[in-house]
Amino acid sequence: MALVHYPVVNKNGKIIASAVTNLDLHDISRAAKTYGVRAFYVVTPLADQKELVKKIVAHWLKGTGGTYNPKRKEALKLIVIKNTLAEVIDDIRENIGDAPKTIVTSANQNTRTVSFKRFREMLQDGNSYLLILGTGWGLSESFIAEADYVLNPVSGNSGYNHLSVRSAAAVMLDRLLGKND
Amino acid sequence: MALVHYPVVNKNGKIIASAVTNLDLHDISRAAKTYGVRAFYVVTPLADQKELVKKIVAHWLKGTGGTYNPKRKEALKLIVIKNTLAEVIDDIRENIGDAPKTIVTSANQNTRTVSFKRFREMLQDGNSYLLILGTGWGLSESFIAEADYVLNPVSGNSGYNHLSVRSAAAVMLDRLLGKND
Repeated sequence: MALVHYPVVNKNGKIIASAVTNLDLHDISRAAKTYGVRAFYVVTPLADQKELVKKIVAHWLKGTGGTYNPKRKEALKLIVIKNTLAEVIDDIRENIGDAPKTIVTSANQNTRTVSFKRFREMLQDGNSYLLILGTGWGLSESFIAEADYVLNPVSGNSGYNHLSVRSAAAVMLDRLLGKND
Repeated sequence: MALVHYPVVNKNGKIIASAVTNLDLHDISRAAKTYGVRAFYVVTPLADQKELVKKIVAHWLKGTGGTYNPKRKEALKLIVIKNTLAEVIDDIRENIGDAPKTIVTSANQNTRTVSFKRFREMLQDGNSYLLILGTGWGLSESFIAEADYVLNPVSGNSGYNHLSVRSAAAVMLDRLLGKND
């Protein structure tokens, strides 16, 4: 999976590069590890933000964090930092020999939308898939337009639908890969 | 639901009062609102921690936060601060006329364990239920022993099972109340 910090939109719909949030890295890597995801790409073109991610990961992999909490180390090991989605896809191609199909999340329904049940079946079809999550107020429209598929938004049972990206990531992985027993 | 900061255990199994985490309040109240939970109790006996929760909530309900992000306000409105679980149960009794049945989460299986599917059915039986989550390394054994039910731990599809309480809360609510379409 990939967590994208650019190009995303802000509250007013303007395209921005969002700041990296420490707990996104922790919570999403722990969920990724729990559900057997192969890699967790953190995508940002900003040098200072890449430096921040490196520092956080190094603390838990090589620093005192790893000794204090070895389980956290296992999760944060999944993090790979990249400038762009193109670089993520190149990296996956180098590792598995083929480009993955991409699936993004969006609050708007469109013709390429697939349900969670359908995508859960697709994950068993032998192809590789890259699940892409946006930060801020979501991925930009043009970015969404370039993806192979769009996943249904996570809906609860109320009109309110404003989960954090950390919560949404966990719910998605559970629907797609969890056992629910 | 209730998020308990005392009595919980630390890394070494010792009973402690854990510190409140800002993003627990945000993420869990947003998930609670998304899935139609009636109240989100934050339980801590520590005066400074209660003051911290009050400040955070006031910022989003009455301060600049509410103007900046009205959706966040709707979620944080669900927060009720209490000293102990007994006070939570009193508050529910005052509001709905009856004490709720309590259900806790634990990593250990025991005779009162119910599956997510079973608890999802129970939620339709006309009773009120209070789902209790622990912080730190989890709720104390004696606290767990006093609950009416114990919910199965959330398991992924790997041996690794270390979700944050924020992620676990979102997955639980989705399994119990979500639509998965």
